[in-house]
Amino acid sequence: MAHYASRMKVTLVAHTPEPELACALAAKTCHAAKMPKGGMTREGMKRMLDIVISSGHTSVLEHASFTFAIEGVSRSLTHQLVRHRMASYSQQSQRHVKLKDFEYVIPPKIAGNPKASNMFRDEMARLSKVYGQLAEMGMPLEDARYVLPNAATSNIVVTMNARSLHNFFELRTCLRAQWEIRKLANLMLKEVQKTAPLLFEWAGPICKARGICLEGVTDCKFYQLYVKKKKSL
Amino acid sequence: MAHYASRMKVTLVAHTPEPELACALAAKTCHAAKMPKGGMTREGMKRMLDIVISSGHTSVLEHASFTFAIEGVSRSLTHQLVRHRMASYSQQSQRHVKLKDFEYVIPPKIAGNPKASNMFRDEMARLSKVYGQLAEMGMPLEDARYVLPNAATSNIVVTMNARSLHNFFELRTCLRAQWEIRKLANLMLKEVQKTAPLLFEWAGPICKARGICLEGVTDCKFYQLYVKKKKSL
Amino acid sequence: MAHYASRMKVTLVAHTPEPELACALAAKTCHAAKMPKGGMTREGMKRMLDIVISSGHTSVLEHASFTFAIEGVSRSLTHQLVRHRMASYSQQSQRHVKLKDFEYVIPPKIAGNPKASNMFRDEMARLSKVYGQLAEMGMPLEDARYVLPNAATSNIVVTMNARSLHNFFELRTCLRAQWEIRKLANLMLKEVQKTAPLLFEWAGPICKARGICLEGVTDCKFYQLYVKKKKSL
Amino acid sequence: MAHYASRMKVTLVAHTPEPELACALAAKTCHAAKMPKGGMTREGMKRMLDIVISSGHTSVLEHASFTFAIEGVSRSLTHQLVRHRMASYSQQSQRHVKLKDFEYVIPPKIAGNPKASNMFRDEMARLSKVYGQLAEMGMPLEDARYVLPNAATSNIVVTMNARSLHNFFELRTCLRAQWEIRKLANLMLKEVQKTAPLLFEWAGPICKARGICLEGVTDCKFYQLYVKKKKSL
Repeated sequence: MAHYASRMKVTLVAHTPEPELACALAAKTCHAAKMPKGGMTREGMKRMLDIVISSGHTSVLEHASFTFAIEGVSRSLTHQLVRHRMASYSQQSQRHVKLKDFEYVIPPKIAGNPKASNMFRDEMARLSKVYGQLAEMGMPLEDARYVLPNAATSNIVVTMNARSLHNFFELRTCLRAQWEIRKLANLMLKEVQKTAPLLFEWAGPICKARGICLEGVTDCKFYQLYVKKKKSL
Repeated sequence: MAHYASRMKVTLVAHTPEPELACALAAKTCHAAKMPKGGMTREGMKRMLDIVISSGHTSVLEHASFTFAIEGVSRSLTHQLVRHRMASYSQQSQRHVKLKDFEYVIPPKIAGNPKASNMFRDEMARLSKVYGQLAEMGMPLEDARYVLPNAATSNIVVTMNARSLHNFFELRTCLRAQWEIRKLANLMLKEVQKTAPLLFEWAGPICKARGICLEGVTDCKFYQLYVKKKKSL
Repeated sequence: MAHYASRMKVTLVAHTPEPELACALAAKTCHAAKMPKGGMTREGMKRMLDIVISSGHTSVLEHASFTFAIEGVSRSLTHQLVRHRMASYSQQSQRHVKLKDFEYVIPPKIAGNPKASNMFRDEMARLSKVYGQLAEMGMPLEDARYVLPNAATSNIVVTMNARSLHNFFELRTCLRAQWEIRKLANLMLKEVQKTAPLLFEWAGPICKARGICLEGVTDCKFYQLYVKKKKSL
Repeated sequence: MAHYASRMKVTLVAHTPEPELACALAAKTCHAAKMPKGGMTREGMKRMLDIVISSGHTSVLEHASFTFAIEGVSRSLTHQLVRHRMASYSQQSQRHVKLKDFEYVIPPKIAGNPKASNMFRDEMARLSKVYGQLAEMGMPLEDARYVLPNAATSNIVVTMNARSLHNFFELRTCLRAQWEIRKLANLMLKEVQKTAPLLFEWAGPICKARGICLEGVTDCKFYQLYVKKKKSL
């Protein structure tokens, strides 16, 4: 049973090849007399994508999609994650997979408090035992799992297109997002920025992406960094 | 802390007024030279809706929507439920709501086994205590909830249109669906059949609605009832 | 064959009863230990909805939906309209409905130029004749309609929830939107503001709704009105 | 100005690499204790995908997406096409692109009737002239296009995932579909069957895919081929 910090793992397992080109050509299609063919220079793509993204005409970003294998996240996280409906999910089933010695996520604040941490870990060990005993008594897995905690980890495959990812990052890399899903969002952002820098240069919390904070939290360090500094230039 | 049986509660809190008329008029619009106005006889509506539903032209059913207040369901259930993406959800937040003496759902097979039932109930009591102690130690609610079990109950407001409901019923009233969500689906179906019988007369498992079983389970009692009997007539 | 100005007609034919209450109760559900029941004062609803809308937590607005019967709009308009995917449509079929002496929309700038207007109207009369002749020669309606112009009018029933409407208004009441769909958006906005003022008080172009212009057109009269004036207060 | 037959062109410009593997691994994730890694044998993939598709558990097919460049289709077609909401579109804009000597689609039945064909072609030539004259008189392109016919061709980039494509093929390769969109669907199906045969072996009209005809047209040649013959084996 592992500590949370060592567990969350995000792998970009597949994506539209040349995702920047796919989106830039789609954008060009809207304004061209002939269907655009072949390549574009990196500069041409950058110019096109910068216009599209800054002006909010982001429907063309839907033509690039990204598939992530996500391991070792809590069921608390996945319950939040699957609320994003512009996405596709395949999640490990607690109805069908027996989780012996299940792994769990321990929140950092609990991990950092020895008394809380011990209490938490004891409870996880105990739940694992009870879950196993219910299964041994012949209770169906789909019923035994009712004792499993939110902290129990899950594996999930997620596909989102670049437009949906922008929205996901606006909401979930914000400092007001819950710590575990923010961590996931940051790992995903890092992956796609490596693969498609022109598509995700401006991705991040809404204050970075759009220069506004809908929550009105203007004293947060991101708002100071992304909005205040820019205005003072 | 209540037994599951007494807890699940489904209330139809709002719906499109005259939902059958809304859908029937929309269907008529597709084939009429003038925008159809005013009422239709019950027979006219029935004829129109029967054609639309049996022939699968169900997009017109999207014009009627239904809002349910759902109480006392487990987080196992809500995690499955929100995977239906053609729907709208507002769920009680475990980040923000303190659940003292939280309620829980106990699976019927566990409830029916005295030894399993005692073990399960003891564990629930214990988790409630641990959750409370973590909160008292200053751990944030959003972290303390990591110990809460799948069995913990939740409240959720759900809006689906009639087309999405048909799909939900096809999948979730099937005998192969998990017991708790099947129970929910049956309660929701009962509500909408009272309110809009013409829209939901044929709603139910896919064998009832479409005369097929994609899983190929032809010895199940629903298949026998809805497909075999009909064919023998 | 009518002048465009006399033709577009928008009727709100159905909507969630008490749409403001439906959304406000859903918002309350997220933060309450018990499922909220019964009514709320108008002030309570207003406070709740103002927070939800200004902070962008607009998923709760999905619980209220609105159905419009729209008559006398061009096929240019409906082709744009149905690109809004968070909505339901039932449109008059040109495959199945014979459009004798079809009606058409004439763009105001063409209507205001006598030479252009005559040319346009002559062509419409001619197309109507050709369409009729092709039908008489036994050509299927679904083929004869290939000669029909974008200007030909259509009837369409549209259902959108309040969240989707907000997005629609942000894009389509903007002065940069095409004139015909902007006209439609303004008529729809007027209807829902009468019915649910608390939900749509801040609805409108994105500069009004969010205080930003993604297109960077800061010299437009809406931006001046909604952003500049407010900042100078 | 070209005859329709020479014009429709469908190119598969991008797709998820190894689309069959992406979907098969996602399916495995649901039932595995560990996140599945690496490859699978062709046989293993086939077994997995056959189960998934035949049993209707097709959400895993959403992880593979396909992008098509579509040229030379009518606006009648694109207006139908974009009604499929589980897809992404970037279409040539008639507001912004000047279509001099615009191309058009001529329906085969009209093309095959000399009198109808001449009348149709004359009208297209005339509309092209009127459109050009309105533009020369200073009318905005977005207004001049109101005279353009449904037959005018358009370019569009479309991205759909494999699940959405299955649904598209069920509806649009059916013999009851309109001839132009059926032609498009068949060209798209041919492309994806070359690229991902295991995903699309059973794709086609719903009688082929599911063994039923919701329209009840059991004397059609596809029903005879796909349902009757199979049953008699």
